[in-house]
Amino acid sequence: RINSERLWDSLMEMAKIGPGIAGGNNRQTLTDFDGEGRHLFKKWCDEAGLEMGVDQMGTMFARREGTDPGALPVYVGSHLDTQPTGGKFDGVLGVLGGLEVIRTLNDLGIKTKHPIVVTNWTNEEGTRFAPAMLASGVFAGVHEQDWAYARQDAEGKRFGDELARIGWKGEEKVGARKMKAFFELHIEQGPILEDEDIDIGVVTHGQGLKWLQVTLTGKESHTGSTPMPKRRNAGLGMARVTELVHEVAMDYQPHAVGAIGHMEVYPNSRNIIAGRTVFTVDIRSPDKEVLDEMDARIRDGIATICEALDISFEIEQVGHFDPITFDEGCVKAIRDAADRLGYTHRNIVSGAGHDACWINRVAPTAMVMCPCVDGLSHNEAEEIYPEWAAAGCGVLFHAVVDTAEI
Amino acid sequence: RINSERLWDSLMEMAKIGPGIAGGNNRQTLTDFDGEGRHLFKKWCDEAGLEMGVDQMGTMFARREGTDPGALPVYVGSHLDTQPTGGKFDGVLGVLGGLEVIRTLNDLGIKTKHPIVVTNWTNEEGTRFAPAMLASGVFAGVHEQDWAYARQDAEGKRFGDELARIGWKGEEKVGARKMKAFFELHIEQGPILEDEDIDIGVVTHGQGLKWLQVTLTGKESHTGSTPMPKRRNAGLGMARVTELVHEVAMDYQPHAVGAIGHMEVYPNSRNIIAGRTVFTVDIRSPDKEVLDEMDARIRDGIATICEALDISFEIEQVGHFDPITFDEGCVKAIRDAADRLGYTHRNIVSGAGHDACWINRVAPTAMVMCPCVDGLSHNEAEEIYPEWAAAGCGVLFHAVVDTAEI
Ligand SMILES: NC(=O)NCCC(=O)O
Ligand SMILES: NC(=O)NCCC(=O)O
Repeated sequence: RINSERLWDSLMEMAKIGPGIAGGNNRQTLTDFDGEGRHLFKKWCDEAGLEMGVDQMGTMFARREGTDPGALPVYVGSHLDTQPTGGKFDGVLGVLGGLEVIRTLNDLGIKTKHPIVVTNWTNEEGTRFAPAMLASGVFAGVHEQDWAYARQDAEGKRFGDELARIGWKGEEKVGARKMKAFFELHIEQGPILEDEDIDIGVVTHGQGLKWLQVTLTGKESHTGSTPMPKRRNAGLGMARVTELVHEVAMDYQPHAVGAIGHMEVYPNSRNIIAGRTVFTVDIRSPDKEVLDEMDARIRDGIATICEALDISFEIEQVGHFDPITFDEGCVKAIRDAADRLGYTHRNIVSGAGHDACWINRVAPTAMVMCPCVDGLSHNEAEEIYPEWAAAGCGVLFHAVVDTAEI
Repeated sequence: RINSERLWDSLMEMAKIGPGIAGGNNRQTLTDFDGEGRHLFKKWCDEAGLEMGVDQMGTMFARREGTDPGALPVYVGSHLDTQPTGGKFDGVLGVLGGLEVIRTLNDLGIKTKHPIVVTNWTNEEGTRFAPAMLASGVFAGVHEQDWAYARQDAEGKRFGDELARIGWKGEEKVGARKMKAFFELHIEQGPILEDEDIDIGVVTHGQGLKWLQVTLTGKESHTGSTPMPKRRNAGLGMARVTELVHEVAMDYQPHAVGAIGHMEVYPNSRNIIAGRTVFTVDIRSPDKEVLDEMDARIRDGIATICEALDISFEIEQVGHFDPITFDEGCVKAIRDAADRLGYTHRNIVSGAGHDACWINRVAPTAMVMCPCVDGLSHNEAEEIYPEWAAAGCGVLFHAVVDTAEI
């Protein structure tokens, strides 16, 4: 059994770094607070006797040696970065749950054959630098490292420069590590488990995603003296695309979602027709065909909307992953662990993207989910109960230890 | 005849202060650049032998004495502040056109019976601090001065503090001055005069306006893992209100306009459903009944939209003026001047709000308009030809001098 109180204390301790404005966290990737969170995690790893490696994308790898040091390690982890208005558990539970697995093994004096490595992947959230899951994507060979370094935040700061600035640009080549398996514990971020009163989600699939960054260019002009037929209103265009994305997603219920959470308006003056808008369409489906169809319909729709409004558009895909199926063996290890511990469980599809989705391409991978209150995440009010965290971490412990072999 | 080259040179000189990013200006109210622009204007007024008064709202009054110092002065002017992406002429032409009237009188050694006062009204644009025409509104008794001082910009800075900071908070009580008449020269900011190839717009009316600042509150949640029926999407709400405002305006063609140029999204992350949006509805009509009907329909529509999306709303009116009719005598003075100078002219309704609209409540008032290229304004590419400026300023000269009596 893991030490649920210790796990909870560590979660609360980490949550003190990068406090939000409403009880949650703002510890966005590569900010000073991200650096501070990394130091605290390293301190805990040091205390647990782990050896820390850091790769050129800033991902942290804390290793507990196995009785067969040559055996492929079992990896476990998630991310410590948060949304600008994020919760205390999204990502953090997976990293500190991994650390709790190690601490419990230390308590019990158990040695595993395979080494175990606890991982903190850099920039999972993707808010400051799109796309999400950036470091795990480079690790899995999906993105070029130089391309990742060149990603810019809203102020034009580059990922590579900010990584160096906070002092966490490591030497280690990215993706060089081979894994026996990768396990990620995460809160569900949706309402299914809580609604059905189920302890554990055994994640069998992850839905696919596309992020389309759209720029509409109209013409700035006076809101009072420009006649309606002469307007080239990029703000109205953005509004119509927002409705379009919603309608397209509604056409594929319950197998799709779609929204626009990021919107910029220029020059953003009460009495100027918007001359330019920039926004990101987020569409997702567990079905690749549906995702591709949504993408095509939205692109067509944007063209039609812009023609009617006499505005022009550019579309840049700034994020993409196809729906994925997790490794059967890893999924079984999680289901067996939940059975053994007597937790209720069900198969579940992850609605969000996770580092596990990319690592699944280069190593046998699966995820454990625990419920979160009201299914709420990406909100400072995100909440879980200590028992839920303990159940998820207990299942993680057994799946990891079974795979790492005693 | 006014000196058209001198007028143009002054316009170009002023445009050097607070340059924009695309050839126009960003000299927003109560910024350092606004302060610099005021100093240049004061220097020119000093050189022309005028006496400067500054009131507690920062409005500048440069007086040329009359042969009967006790006679009520004729006022002439507009504003030197600009939009964040504004042009070189919106407002500036009216102030420097007023100065050119004085300079021409000086050149010709003409003394008028009534004093003439050139005015620069503070915060006409209303982008940094809503509402527009703030100082002329206080002057006309429409707003309380303390209320005006408490207006905040997007960073929470207060109008009163910023006015003191740039050093232009005068001693003079606001609204104490009595006027024989007020004349304002302004670019049309719309396409009518240019389309009809007419030199001069004789402004008989101004359309009314309402600015409704709307706050929608939904719930931040994950764009991937929140099922569509569980979303409370304040971004989608804003999109629907944007479309509603457009549709309502289209129902009253050609007698209304409507748009949303100012939009804020919180927390503005690609993978968070917007929990809150704040935006300003701008609706206008020359017909008060139409304006009121639009207002009511939009308020009703917002309630309906929000109910369907399970989000809440607040509406604050942050700007309002009813349609106005300018003074018959002043309008006639302008029309007569245009006739005398041989310019083509037509009656016109101002689509935009102007300081003249407020001053019209406390003094006989009218406006002269000259065309602008493509009807474009509130855009850095705003353009006029020197001949157009000269025609407008010539008409202004004759109307002012006729009223001030030689
Ligand atoms: N788990 C999570 O919130 N990941 C961020 C990437 C996404 O938007 O799905
Ligand atoms: N003339 C002008 O652009 N005034 C600003 C106030 C308005 O939006 O009408």
